[in-house]
This record gives sequence, structure tokens and C-alpha cells, in this order.
Amino acid sequence: MSSRETAASVCVVGSMALDSIETPEGSATDVLGGASTYFSVAASFFAPVNLVGVVGSDFPEHERRFLDSCGINLDGLTEAEGGTFRWHGRYHENMNIRDTVDLQLNVFEQFQPTLPESYRASEFVFLANIQPSLQSDVLSQLESPLYVGADTMDHWITTAPEELRALLSRVDLVSINDSEVCQLAGEGNIVRAARKVLELGPSHLIVKRGEYGALLFSSNDVFAVPAFPLEVVTDPTGAGDTFAGGLFGSLAEAGEITRETLRRAIVYGSVVASFTVEAFGLDRLRALSRAELDERYRAFMALTDFHTY
Amino acid sequence: MSSRETAASVCVVGSMALDSIETPEGSATDVLGGASTYFSVAASFFAPVNLVGVVGSDFPEHERRFLDSCGINLDGLTEAEGGTFRWHGRYHENMNIRDTVDLQLNVFEQFQPTLPESYRASEFVFLANIQPSLQSDVLSQLESPLYVGADTMDHWITTAPEELRALLSRVDLVSINDSEVCQLAGEGNIVRAARKVLELGPSHLIVKRGEYGALLFSSNDVFAVPAFPLEVVTDPTGAGDTFAGGLFGSLAEAGEITRETLRRAIVYGSVVASFTVEAFGLDRLRALSRAELDERYRAFMALTDFHTY
Repeated sequence: MSSRETAASVCVVGSMALDSIETPEGSATDVLGGASTYFSVAASFFAPVNLVGVVGSDFPEHERRFLDSCGINLDGLTEAEGGTFRWHGRYHENMNIRDTVDLQLNVFEQFQPTLPESYRASEFVFLANIQPSLQSDVLSQLESPLYVGADTMDHWITTAPEELRALLSRVDLVSINDSEVCQLAGEGNIVRAARKVLELGPSHLIVKRGEYGALLFSSNDVFAVPAFPLEVVTDPTGAGDTFAGGLFGSLAEAGEITRETLRRAIVYGSVVASFTVEAFGLDRLRALSRAELDERYRAFMALTDFHTY
Repeated sequence: MSSRETAASVCVVGSMALDSIETPEGSATDVLGGASTYFSVAASFFAPVNLVGVVGSDFPEHERRFLDSCGINLDGLTEAEGGTFRWHGRYHENMNIRDTVDLQLNVFEQFQPTLPESYRASEFVFLANIQPSLQSDVLSQLESPLYVGADTMDHWITTAPEELRALLSRVDLVSINDSEVCQLAGEGNIVRAARKVLELGPSHLIVKRGEYGALLFSSNDVFAVPAFPLEVVTDPTGAGDTFAGGLFGSLAEAGEITRETLRRAIVYGSVVASFTVEAFGLDRLRALSRAELDERYRAFMALTDFHTY
């Protein structure tokens, strides 16, 4: 078995934020958030992480120490004059629906990701949801990545379709939710939409379905995994990003892309995400051990097994 | 391996109808439908079926012959003076949503299910969605069934809660959709809602989630299975009833209730339902072979496997 110390490294580029969150279960104010933050913490259970992001001068020193304590390389973390990106969201009783109450881009508005020299040889790369041309810029700074994943959102599908297509022609995996897959393909059926997205370039497409799990499509294979049924869902924020983090961490730990390592990685991604939503922000992941992840991975096998008998 | 000839028999009680269906893919008029019809045809791939239902004098003779040709025992099929139950439904672009355009109960309004003597020893019994006190009446006519399942709907949860609770205390399995589970339990979280429903009596609860698959809950176990991803969904009518039919047929074929036979049966139910929705009404099942079912069962294993490597 490989371990975090010997695994290939994962490079992630994306937002870092301070979030205020309201859910039917309670609320949290100015907690550590942002796509690349969630991703990094999740991936750090499996592999060394190289983080690229920007924060403002108000970013709490203890959160920087926390990220460092996870084994996340912060050489690519820039502190700019101004405030950290802030997001205030409110979830409905049905937590699949949320409203953005307030959004302050602050220093994130001028984010121009530059990879430190030491990151350029990263083999596993995840481009979290930012402007597609910025994602492409990052790609151009890498030497010869083994496997590149990208996230995006409805906003870029609508406002930057050409930049997004240019990006998708250069990545190995795209990870988006079901409505975004249909929007991107202009097609209502998920299977047909997935095929169209794969024609844009990626060899793998992950369709995130929230509480219903995820689908992995490649040109000749489909893998379906349910979400882990949970008695308590406190805060869905970061579920998708920690899913991607667990996925890429597990792939980097395995060191190669095969049908087997991909499927295992998707289950590990689902496992990490299932812990994320149990508490506000990153609280559950702060207290989580690799042993707990492995235990829930085994519970996931038991949940879905009709293969071994 | 057991075969249909040697399997235990399945008894089903419920509606028989002539449906008119409109979906984004087309329409069909006066086609064979009804919960017990769909259930019977699905179950007949695995085990002998004893059908209890009522039709009017307009029921097509060739459909009676079709059911007979499936090996479905029609001794419990009554022909009453009047018209057969008719349902006219229209599906939205999002086929999870449908409107009832017209509903004529006709002879079904006076349905008082009476089991022929030859049915009373049935071991596997499914009470499709009818008035809960009628479902209980049927139960009282059975000698000593091994395993009894019941379906119900939002209408009975609201209008006949006491009769429904009395029924649930006497059945082994209840099979309903996710919003009905939450409604029945008065609880928004599926896992907590499932636990409350199990406290009402059944040892197993199946939560049907349409295109997202199904969950099986017992007091100490959960099983999750996705739906088979389909490129073409023509008509969702009967998916839930053929899921239940495949499930009970497979259980009767196995002849016993274990963790293994239940999980396999749920996958077979999902397999049959995945064929049902490929064409209007029962058209796909009319042309289906057991070999095709087994082939898709293997495809289901490949779709979900991360257990055997």
C-alpha cells in the first residue's frame, strides 16, 4: 500500500473563502471555505497537496496553520491587500436548494494563478471552478501532468462557452452536476448528454448527483455509485469539492489511472463528502482520521454489495 | 438454479386498467395497464403468478390471452358489468412529473378482492396500491404467507392513516417512493424516516427513487442500488410496479428470504423496470426474454462493481 508520504502530489487551483452559512440545522459565520480549500483538505488524507489560491490580509493565521498541519504545501498561496473572498449562503428545508445571500469577491476578483516552480511537475491536477481561460492558463504552466480534472458551473457554460470548450479539449476529467451536464450538451437525457460531453475531449466525465450519488462515464464504460445514506446532514457546503479532493487524492495515492483505481477513487470521494456534510464547513474533516475513512469505505462496500455472493 | 416451473407462486392484488399515455417521446391509447397487470407480467419471468383483479366487459380478449400466455393464473380475474378502469396521464419534459388528465374508476370502484380457493396457500404476496382496508381483507384470506409486501400512496397516507397503520403492522415489506416515506414518517431525512416506518411493523422498507434507484432498509442493514442509466426513456408508466414484480418473482424463485436473495431480487426488480420504461406500456416486456434479463443483471453488476477487485 502506498502512503501519503510516497504518493504523487496533487495540485489544485481555485477559490479560498470565508463563508457564512445558514441551514435548517443551524448557522456558522466566517468559517474557512472555498473550493480549493475543501479540495485540499480532502485530498490531504491521501497525498501531498500543492495549493494555489489567494486570500486577503484578514485571513486567520490559525487557518493557515491548520492547512499547513494537513501537509498542504502553501507556497502557492498569495496574500493580497484587501479582504478574503466572502460568501453568505442560505439552504432551504430541502437542502438541495440554496440562495446566495451575499457575495464579496474581494481579492479573488483579481486572481491570476501563478504556479511556483516547485509545483510545475505536479502529476495530478485539479482546476476548481474559476473562469475557464484562467483554468487554461494554469494548464499551460504545468510540465507534463499525468491526469487533469476540471470543475465548472452553469455561469461559465452560459457566459464563456468558447473558453470552456477550449479548456475541455485539454483535460482528462470533467466533474459537474447533472443539470450542468445537460446544459453543456444541450440534451435532457443524462446518458446521451454524457456522450456529447466526452466528444468535447475529456476521457472521463463524472456526473455529481448530490444525495443520489455519482456516475462516471467513459467512452466504453459507466460506473454508478449511490451516496452514503446519512441520518444527519448539517451543511452540504463543500460536498462536491471534497468529493473531488478525495477522488484526486486517492488517484495520486494509487499513482496510475485504471478502471479499478478510478472506481476506488470515486468511492473514496463519496466517503469524504459523506463526512463533510455531517458538520458545518470543514469541522468534521478537521476531526477525521484516515482510519475512519477506510472504515466508511468498507461500509460503502457493504451498502452496495451484491457482487461477492 | 430454480426455474419458473418449480418456484413458489406469487399472488398479487391490485388494479387492472386501460391507459392512455402521453410522454415527450409520443403517445399510446387504451393500452394494457394497472399496477397488478404490470406486476404480474414482470413476476412471470421468474415464478408462477396468481392474479386478483377486476376488468369490465370491454377488456380485450387478446390481452387476457397475453396474460395467460405469460403463465399468469387468471382464476382470480373477475369480469364485471361496465367499463374497465381507465387512466389518462401526461408526462412533463422532466418525466419525473406527470399529470392525470382523466380517471374513470368504472368497475374498479366496487372492487372487493376475493381469493379463489387455489390462491389461499400462496407464499409470496404483493398488495398493490388500493384502499388499505381492502389490502388487509386480502391478507385475512391467506393461509400462512411466507412474505407479504404492500405498496401505498400519498392519498391513503392522508385519508386512511389508521387503516394504513393497521395494514403495515401485518406486512413484511413496504415499497413506496421517497416523498411518501417522509410523509408517512412525518420526517424529512430519509434514514430517520425509514427507521420510523420500520417501527410500524414491516421488517423491510424499499424506498423507490425513480431514475436514482432504490434503497432497502431493515433494522440493521441498508442496501443501495442505482437505476440502470438509459439512453432512451419512452414511458415511465409501470416502472415501480414492474420493479416490485421482478423483486417478488425473484424472491419466489429463490424460495427464501435472506440478505442475499433480497439484494439479488432488488437488482432483478431494477433490471425489469429498466426494460419497462424503454417502450410504451407493456410493449418492451411483451418482447423480453429471461436471457435478456440475465444479461442486463450482469451489466448491472459491471455498472456497480468495485467489490471484486
